[in-house]
Amino acid sequence: MHSGDGPYDDYKMWVARMIGEKSSWGVSFQGEHGAYSEQAAQAYFGDSVQTEPCNTIKGVFTAVEKESSLFGIVPAENSLEGSVNQTYDSLLESSVKIYAEVKIKVSHCLLALPGTKLAEVRAVYSHPQALAQCSAFLESLHVVAEPTYDTAGSARILKEKVLRDAAAIASKKAAALYGLDILQEGIEDFPENFTRFLVIANKEAERTGTDKTSIVFATKHTPGSLQNALSELSTRKINLTKIESRPIRGMPWEYHFFVDFEGHRTDRECVDALEALGRATTSLKILGSYPRATA
Amino acid sequence: MHSGDGPYDDYKMWVARMIGEKSSWGVSFQGEHGAYSEQAAQAYFGDSVQTEPCNTIKGVFTAVEKESSLFGIVPAENSLEGSVNQTYDSLLESSVKIYAEVKIKVSHCLLALPGTKLAEVRAVYSHPQALAQCSAFLESLHVVAEPTYDTAGSARILKEKVLRDAAAIASKKAAALYGLDILQEGIEDFPENFTRFLVIANKEAERTGTDKTSIVFATKHTPGSLQNALSELSTRKINLTKIESRPIRGMPWEYHFFVDFEGHRTDRECVDALEALGRATTSLKILGSYPRATA
Repeated sequence: MHSGDGPYDDYKMWVARMIGEKSSWGVSFQGEHGAYSEQAAQAYFGDSVQTEPCNTIKGVFTAVEKESSLFGIVPAENSLEGSVNQTYDSLLESSVKIYAEVKIKVSHCLLALPGTKLAEVRAVYSHPQALAQCSAFLESLHVVAEPTYDTAGSARILKEKVLRDAAAIASKKAAALYGLDILQEGIEDFPENFTRFLVIANKEAERTGTDKTSIVFATKHTPGSLQNALSELSTRKINLTKIESRPIRGMPWEYHFFVDFEGHRTDRECVDALEALGRATTSLKILGSYPRATA
Repeated sequence: MHSGDGPYDDYKMWVARMIGEKSSWGVSFQGEHGAYSEQAAQAYFGDSVQTEPCNTIKGVFTAVEKESSLFGIVPAENSLEGSVNQTYDSLLESSVKIYAEVKIKVSHCLLALPGTKLAEVRAVYSHPQALAQCSAFLESLHVVAEPTYDTAGSARILKEKVLRDAAAIASKKAAALYGLDILQEGIEDFPENFTRFLVIANKEAERTGTDKTSIVFATKHTPGSLQNALSELSTRKINLTKIESRPIRGMPWEYHFFVDFEGHRTDRECVDALEALGRATTSLKILGSYPRATA
């Protein structure tokens, strides 16, 4: 684990101490070893971090809630394909806090068993988000896209089932882990392909001065109620960086709004805005204040 | 095709005439016969409407653009799982207009080959949205969820591949179409499960007085710019019914905002709001004004 300057590295040091104290506690992630989530965990915590694969995003939240993992890492949004709904739905229901954000560049490879030629590939396995990010490339190949639960898991499927007429979309790292050949690199439709991950924990992050706060709220089903709520941020010159709506289950066509804004929940103007938002909404939950990631 | 009272039925009559004139033109939908999209088309146009299956949502848009179909029908959002990203991304890129909206109640069934018992089911095939809508039920069964491109298509897979230890989540109609047994009905996690579909066409709908308008815009990446844009609606007492953000491809962490509001684009206050929005945004596209569906 490396160290450097600035608040981020202080956090990494603190995390290293925490992991040192509780050496059986790692970082839970969704997918198999070699998944992009695991790479994000390594980018944030250092390569020597202990990582724990989970089948589902909900499973990552449960692992942190039950303290079988000290931290979890979950994908929040991709710069091409948008938000990851399961993460937002889990944030609403869970008691965990967003502790940090990590942005990594995603570059996909087409992997196959050694010996398989590109022209022999009939089906391509991967997570639906990865298939979507490479849709132009896949159309040019005239292959069947087979959605799976994980990118690295798709690489493992090829290996285990000895699929000679198929390929997987996954990372370079997954190729090495599962002994596959890289048929083509950088197959995403747009090179500017980033995923933003959230580190979740039972602990809240401390204020650094360059923070971001994530909240979720619902409003009355009346004209202007969303605009009124958002004006509590804009009138205080608080910069909204993202808004995402998710349906409220059991209440058709009503929504929870997930909003990210710049500032820490203990900053004066944020305290005021959150108090006012509490009055302007029918429910309000603070998901966490945490250091902003650099691109 | 039945007829009744009110503006909706006038549209159906007009549509019936159009289809009568061009009898080779049907309504394109994504999926296989028996899909919920096809049911939505029948709910709107009448049971005798000619429906054309397409593999993808993008394919439905292309069919309408190239006039191989007079209309298309695409899912926009589900009341449990939220928006259908491919539809929003296609609306941005396509020249077609939203012509109408249709809301239908979705009730899922677990289907299997005649003779298969519930206890024998090891894998359940369906579209990821349907799998998500039944996730509590699937967890209780301890089965593997296998994502596919379509609900009705999953029923067809069971039939064609003679899968005796698997089931599909699809409609009652799909059971009848593919000769499958219904192992269990109403398996969705919440009974209030609706999907809102959009009818797309090259023609714009006429004003009825109870209309809705859909737009998409981008804003400057500066504090308060989204709030400023939305205030052009709220200051004119225009009711915003939905906001959805989608990433702008190639511009990480910048977004297109899809907004639905009540009113027709030719209504006085909507004309004013759209003019003002044109100045408050960096791009603005009107996706269509169309009659509001009743629940």
